[in-house]
Amino acid sequence: MSLDGFIAGTGITKNNPMGEGGHRLHEWLFKSKTDTDELLLKDIIDNSGAVIVGARTYTTAIEDAWDGESPFTFPAFVVCHHEPAIKVDGFTYVTDGVVSALIEARTAAGNKNVWIMGGANIIQQYLQLKLFDEIHIHIVPVLFAEGTRLFDVIGKDRIELNKLKTIDTPAATHIYYEVLK
Amino acid sequence: MSLDGFIAGTGITKNNPMGEGGHRLHEWLFKSKTDTDELLLKDIIDNSGAVIVGARTYTTAIEDAWDGESPFTFPAFVVCHHEPAIKVDGFTYVTDGVVSALIEARTAAGNKNVWIMGGANIIQQYLQLKLFDEIHIHIVPVLFAEGTRLFDVIGKDRIELNKLKTIDTPAATHIYYEVLK
Repeated sequence: MSLDGFIAGTGITKNNPMGEGGHRLHEWLFKSKTDTDELLLKDIIDNSGAVIVGARTYTTAIEDAWDGESPFTFPAFVVCHHEPAIKVDGFTYVTDGVVSALIEARTAAGNKNVWIMGGANIIQQYLQLKLFDEIHIHIVPVLFAEGTRLFDVIGKDRIELNKLKTIDTPAATHIYYEVLK
Repeated sequence: MSLDGFIAGTGITKNNPMGEGGHRLHEWLFKSKTDTDELLLKDIIDNSGAVIVGARTYTTAIEDAWDGESPFTFPAFVVCHHEPAIKVDGFTYVTDGVVSALIEARTAAGNKNVWIMGGANIIQQYLQLKLFDEIHIHIVPVLFAEGTRLFDVIGKDRIELNKLKTIDTPAATHIYYEVLK
């Protein structure tokens, strides 16, 4: 996210799934990446046994950004109100809510992590239900001013975190937190 | 600020200038401080030659939190629409806007920094005018969910930052950014 908390710019479309200028937030994964950033991404992927994404993320990305295929090497779960028109191998469509999606993903992941990737709305729902064990955040040195705010609406309860580690690279400050319950 | 960007809780009053539970955000200065946090605070103070605060911060703090005296060892400037009822030595009341306050503070500070302390509204005004040279942020491991958001409204222009250094302590992640213009 940007220092002011945005994970995408305004105007998200299928051709522009990160919104206006939103790729700025992923430069640490691409043109600005160091060996440390690369290892960190590998670490996220290696430790994940399943991933959860929201319906909007799926629908926006599946045909264009993901080119009609799952970009994941492990099972992916889509939280949606209705099964989408375009169904793809590697995805399971969960229509009975975020808790159900987490239970299915948990089973699929075995002893590995369930990665709740986003979008912001899904992450906010899991936060409000206190279902995160850890939050891994990548703070990019930019103020976005507008767009999609990661922690926009997370209820009224304060959530205490315990900082596990901080890894600083030029393009991002990567902070791993444990969620205290 | 909290990881979700708040610098105070809800319900700010003279008796509770940080809002409900807002002291959580300053624990790195008090009960949770390490030698590193202490040096960092000393560094802020030693390098400041003047400080700017908003009218709301001043009015909320002056009688109670600040006990009727300036808490600063250098000249302090209050940006306000009208001179306040309670005037105190060490403060200059600037009624013709944030730019004027910065010019006066700049002169007073000599070759030291002008510290724009807050509140959020004043910081947002200086950000929109691109008058910051650096942003020093202290990210506290907690999600506040509600309160006063530091970067709530900063216009529509994205602001690029260059990370100068990151200092990690258990109670906060201190990040120093240069503002690119």
